[in-house]
Amino acid sequence: MKAFMNEEFLLSNETASRLFHEHAEHCPIIDYHNHLSPKDIFNRRRYENLTQLWLEGDHYKWRCMRVCGVPEEYVTGNASDWEKFEQFATIMPRLIGSPVYHWAHLELQRYFGIHTPLTADTAKEIWEKTAEQLKGEGFDAVSLLQKMHVQILCTTDDPADDLQWHRKLAGEDVGFRTLPSFRPDRFLHIDQPAWSTALQQLSERYGAITDWASLLEALKKSLDFFCDSGCRVTDHGFLRFRYGTGDPTAVMEKALTGAVLTEEEVSAYQGALLRFLAGEYTARGLTMQLHLGPIRNNSPKLYQSFGADAGGDSIGAATDAFLLSAFLGDLEGADQLPKTILYNLNPVDSAMLSTMAVNFASNGAKVQYGAAWWLLDHIRGIREQMDQLLETGLLSGSVGMLTDSRAFTSFVRHEYFRRILCDKLGVLVEQGQYPCDMETLGNMVEDICWRNAVSYFGF
Amino acid sequence: MKAFMNEEFLLSNETASRLFHEHAEHCPIIDYHNHLSPKDIFNRRRYENLTQLWLEGDHYKWRCMRVCGVPEEYVTGNASDWEKFEQFATIMPRLIGSPVYHWAHLELQRYFGIHTPLTADTAKEIWEKTAEQLKGEGFDAVSLLQKMHVQILCTTDDPADDLQWHRKLAGEDVGFRTLPSFRPDRFLHIDQPAWSTALQQLSERYGAITDWASLLEALKKSLDFFCDSGCRVTDHGFLRFRYGTGDPTAVMEKALTGAVLTEEEVSAYQGALLRFLAGEYTARGLTMQLHLGPIRNNSPKLYQSFGADAGGDSIGAATDAFLLSAFLGDLEGADQLPKTILYNLNPVDSAMLSTMAVNFASNGAKVQYGAAWWLLDHIRGIREQMDQLLETGLLSGSVGMLTDSRAFTSFVRHEYFRRILCDKLGVLVEQGQYPCDMETLGNMVEDICWRNAVSYFGF
Amino acid sequence: MKAFMNEEFLLSNETASRLFHEHAEHCPIIDYHNHLSPKDIFNRRRYENLTQLWLEGDHYKWRCMRVCGVPEEYVTGNASDWEKFEQFATIMPRLIGSPVYHWAHLELQRYFGIHTPLTADTAKEIWEKTAEQLKGEGFDAVSLLQKMHVQILCTTDDPADDLQWHRKLAGEDVGFRTLPSFRPDRFLHIDQPAWSTALQQLSERYGAITDWASLLEALKKSLDFFCDSGCRVTDHGFLRFRYGTGDPTAVMEKALTGAVLTEEEVSAYQGALLRFLAGEYTARGLTMQLHLGPIRNNSPKLYQSFGADAGGDSIGAATDAFLLSAFLGDLEGADQLPKTILYNLNPVDSAMLSTMAVNFASNGAKVQYGAAWWLLDHIRGIREQMDQLLETGLLSGSVGMLTDSRAFTSFVRHEYFRRILCDKLGVLVEQGQYPCDMETLGNMVEDICWRNAVSYFGF
Repeated sequence: MKAFMNEEFLLSNETASRLFHEHAEHCPIIDYHNHLSPKDIFNRRRYENLTQLWLEGDHYKWRCMRVCGVPEEYVTGNASDWEKFEQFATIMPRLIGSPVYHWAHLELQRYFGIHTPLTADTAKEIWEKTAEQLKGEGFDAVSLLQKMHVQILCTTDDPADDLQWHRKLAGEDVGFRTLPSFRPDRFLHIDQPAWSTALQQLSERYGAITDWASLLEALKKSLDFFCDSGCRVTDHGFLRFRYGTGDPTAVMEKALTGAVLTEEEVSAYQGALLRFLAGEYTARGLTMQLHLGPIRNNSPKLYQSFGADAGGDSIGAATDAFLLSAFLGDLEGADQLPKTILYNLNPVDSAMLSTMAVNFASNGAKVQYGAAWWLLDHIRGIREQMDQLLETGLLSGSVGMLTDSRAFTSFVRHEYFRRILCDKLGVLVEQGQYPCDMETLGNMVEDICWRNAVSYFGF
Repeated sequence: MKAFMNEEFLLSNETASRLFHEHAEHCPIIDYHNHLSPKDIFNRRRYENLTQLWLEGDHYKWRCMRVCGVPEEYVTGNASDWEKFEQFATIMPRLIGSPVYHWAHLELQRYFGIHTPLTADTAKEIWEKTAEQLKGEGFDAVSLLQKMHVQILCTTDDPADDLQWHRKLAGEDVGFRTLPSFRPDRFLHIDQPAWSTALQQLSERYGAITDWASLLEALKKSLDFFCDSGCRVTDHGFLRFRYGTGDPTAVMEKALTGAVLTEEEVSAYQGALLRFLAGEYTARGLTMQLHLGPIRNNSPKLYQSFGADAGGDSIGAATDAFLLSAFLGDLEGADQLPKTILYNLNPVDSAMLSTMAVNFASNGAKVQYGAAWWLLDHIRGIREQMDQLLETGLLSGSVGMLTDSRAFTSFVRHEYFRRILCDKLGVLVEQGQYPCDMETLGNMVEDICWRNAVSYFGF
Repeated sequence: MKAFMNEEFLLSNETASRLFHEHAEHCPIIDYHNHLSPKDIFNRRRYENLTQLWLEGDHYKWRCMRVCGVPEEYVTGNASDWEKFEQFATIMPRLIGSPVYHWAHLELQRYFGIHTPLTADTAKEIWEKTAEQLKGEGFDAVSLLQKMHVQILCTTDDPADDLQWHRKLAGEDVGFRTLPSFRPDRFLHIDQPAWSTALQQLSERYGAITDWASLLEALKKSLDFFCDSGCRVTDHGFLRFRYGTGDPTAVMEKALTGAVLTEEEVSAYQGALLRFLAGEYTARGLTMQLHLGPIRNNSPKLYQSFGADAGGDSIGAATDAFLLSAFLGDLEGADQLPKTILYNLNPVDSAMLSTMAVNFASNGAKVQYGAAWWLLDHIRGIREQMDQLLETGLLSGSVGMLTDSRAFTSFVRHEYFRRILCDKLGVLVEQGQYPCDMETLGNMVEDICWRNAVSYFGF
């Protein structure tokens, strides 16, 4: 029996152990997709206790508490910080097998040097030990990132954002760069209430938007401003990937009157806007990320009382392979296919996306199948993405892991990924499926954990 | 090499073995969903031989015989009991890897103390030994259930049923309770021929059904009668889950004329009836089960010669995640979401259902992702459901296994599930993914195997 | 650690090793579906170097080169044979985990006795050694097939083909038979440009096709000619499986005018043609293969510069289970269901197809779930198909593996499959899931690798 989450955690053989400890463990972190607050970084935000650090905005943990029957008062409600933490500690042993269980213990180990399992019995001691440490050096937002050897952070930002914190951070010497990512979701989803607000906000920064042409002009100006602020990456989320080929001008005109659009009209608008954006990304050397397949805010009670990002989200439907193929094919045919990363939330899309990406490798655009994400970033989900790349894609060319997180201590997820990666390669070697060529393997591990992302995104 | 199906069957490590033998093995059985005949229980039905016990109504075994080329005469036809058994014994060695292979041998071991593999060579000896035992004490329907420590049985019953056998059994002291489950499928499927018959039969018991309002009245009376007879659980099967929001009154009026309904009309009716029923379940504290995704009676030849439940069924299409989310959300918003268990037959729905259930955990309704079922209740299918719960749900809160069976010796399926459960938890401990805290783990195993079901269903 | 790809490759236990070396390894090969050129066989084609043997037509390897960033010049372009091989050797170490990596090394071992891993460093030496051997005896197309103990080859041929090479080969004594397979895809896909050309070519051989009736007449004549040339197998590929029940006569009339058909019209035509063909296959004892779920030619650049089979293909959408059930049910009901093999490219169809096949086992038609294919024929894909058969179908009745390949050295894929098969059965025995009855297991392995195919197809 292996000891609980020791230095060989998830490493089942000698080759895996060597690959991790000699190569993966010390690679810098390029976190090319997350939801960190640049304001918190600039302000070197501090935390008084684990509740502020862990439970303030982490809907992963909220889901765990709710499914264990913890009343909402102790999840997002008015209970005290200690009461909330006590509730979380009490349910921890029930979370066997969950990535949240592993992440929390990795965080206790790496940031606080605590190796005791968190339970109702150990809650008080861990609460006090961590609170004591949080008062000292090394626990403000910047120090937490430095401790993990972060080199690049790409946050997620709206085209109407003024990026003031990113621009202020550009002048700071903190050892890592905090770059904005362009996420035009509010502009794509013309059938959502947020679309009008988005237009208005963008108008205020970049000139009146009265029709399709002026929308594109404003988005171009925003893109230029993002690029001037260091942006290398863009992102787009889809519950259902739609891709129409109709003319968007009339659709936009109709939408501006407040009329309800048909499914075809929405598809035409989204298709046209995606084609336009992809062309602009290509011209600027930006990478396009597509996140496919959640259903957001399933629970009306949670949504009404809390709003979005409450943790009431689930895995949704499969992505339409024909539409995705048409979209990528049209871009390629028009020489406007940017570097692209395809992420699925529903595991049923894995094989399709991995093979789809390879079809568009040949023009140098390097379409990639991206890392396991959100509700899939557990051990099996991470292995599934790696297996798809091994079998039908190119694991050795992958840009590796991202946190996709709002939490400053979530960077242990890179360690989680790296251990799983090294184990997977180690198993192939131990089984005689690959020669025990440690130099090649070591370089491959470092490429996936670090160097591929640097060169792919052009940091 | 491990010996064939010995006491350590499916237990790959020491922790798993202790969890099974010290905790799971002796837990009572709460079988909250099956198709047993309450009449056979009341009558303490006896069996002359293994063919009567095994092959009379078990379409799992029929499928195995047919796919091996056994003529229908020896499956459901006029061959003698011995001839049928001989055919089944002869194909057994070909069923390597099938749950039917494992179940049959577990049944020989647990009920008859026979540890010899069943083959053409051993058929005669096993036939004779079991026939001898079947004549003695301990092999009537009640004794077979007692031997497995069954505490609760929930059968599957039509709203028009008079539940006479359940009510007679309520007066018997047999050590377990036999409760009816409310399964209104015939009333939901307004597009099926059985709908009219169902209405007529319900009318006869609960007053004339002439329109939507009187249908609801009759169903309410039936529900009251079911609850008075001990019912705690309801069940609903869907080939395609439909969920419309239109008005059902006109649809029902049209259907009563015998006119063919459109897809939209069927969806409107089903959506309205499901919302109504869910509200009634909530008011009565009943659990709602949804079984999603088979295709029934694919083979017209089997259906014509035999009718339903002939074994000509298969895994069908994926469930529409948006419709399911809308249904659960509407119920939650109206405070009419009962305890709900979601079961999938197509493995592609696993991740979606597991994450969907968690979205609705927060209002105390405890929506759960249910156990592997029917064509999925093999080792890998059972592991898949557990993995989903470990990764994205809450295995420790699961209500565990059910037989879903017509056969009185099928209760070894609980043992099958429990061995797989203990092995899965044991592996996590042995790999250092969870502390070796045997008290917590032992309680968790007992909860999943037994106590969670008692408290969840409110027995 | 196991040595790299030695004689125990993929065999993880003693039982597996015995099953492979004592039973599977020396079974003859029945390759009932491939894309070999009968002309190359008849002409005993020779190869000067590994590029001609490996890279001339193998889109699997082209995909690997492109995803590694090799310029098209070195893939399908004008670079020299050596330059192409050097590029392929250089990327080989990056293909860790890919079946292409394993196949290439198995080919070096089995055909050339070379056990060195192929890398940039070993490229020159391997190039020279193999070129030397290719000059000698035993490396023409016929000898390569004889070396692998091939008994039967079924190529893939258009109904308009004159089958001259098959007929010439029938007179040769080479130790194996090269039989045509009837693949009427061009005739099914009435919405594709190739349909008109196909009609014209078939008219030239079998009389004018002016309407639905004359199309059927011509296809019947072609089928008779195929059967006269030894055909036992047919094949059909579907991006989307459509199955309509309307009248095809008017649809065909409309198509002949060049008008664009609706989705319903295409479905009606395809449904009618499939029903007709299935009846004809049944009458002739032919097996019907259905290959479901790719998307072809996703990349317009590749398609424009190269045409089909360039490697720009991917896994597509899930198959409609209801339509497939209706098709098979209609055939069974009309006594026109031939032996049928169902293959999926999207892994999401696995469980559905495996259970669907069993529904139609009872009328002696033996519908089977077929081997992992194309982008799924990696270790995990092959295991997935076996697991489905073990759990819900009948692995012991399976007709085993096929190459589906254009390459004369691709027959090591049978060895790959056999090793995985023996390992899977060995694991079941070692875990105590099946008795260690080596005679039964050995026969089962030989059946799956060889005898089942001989009797199923009626060679």
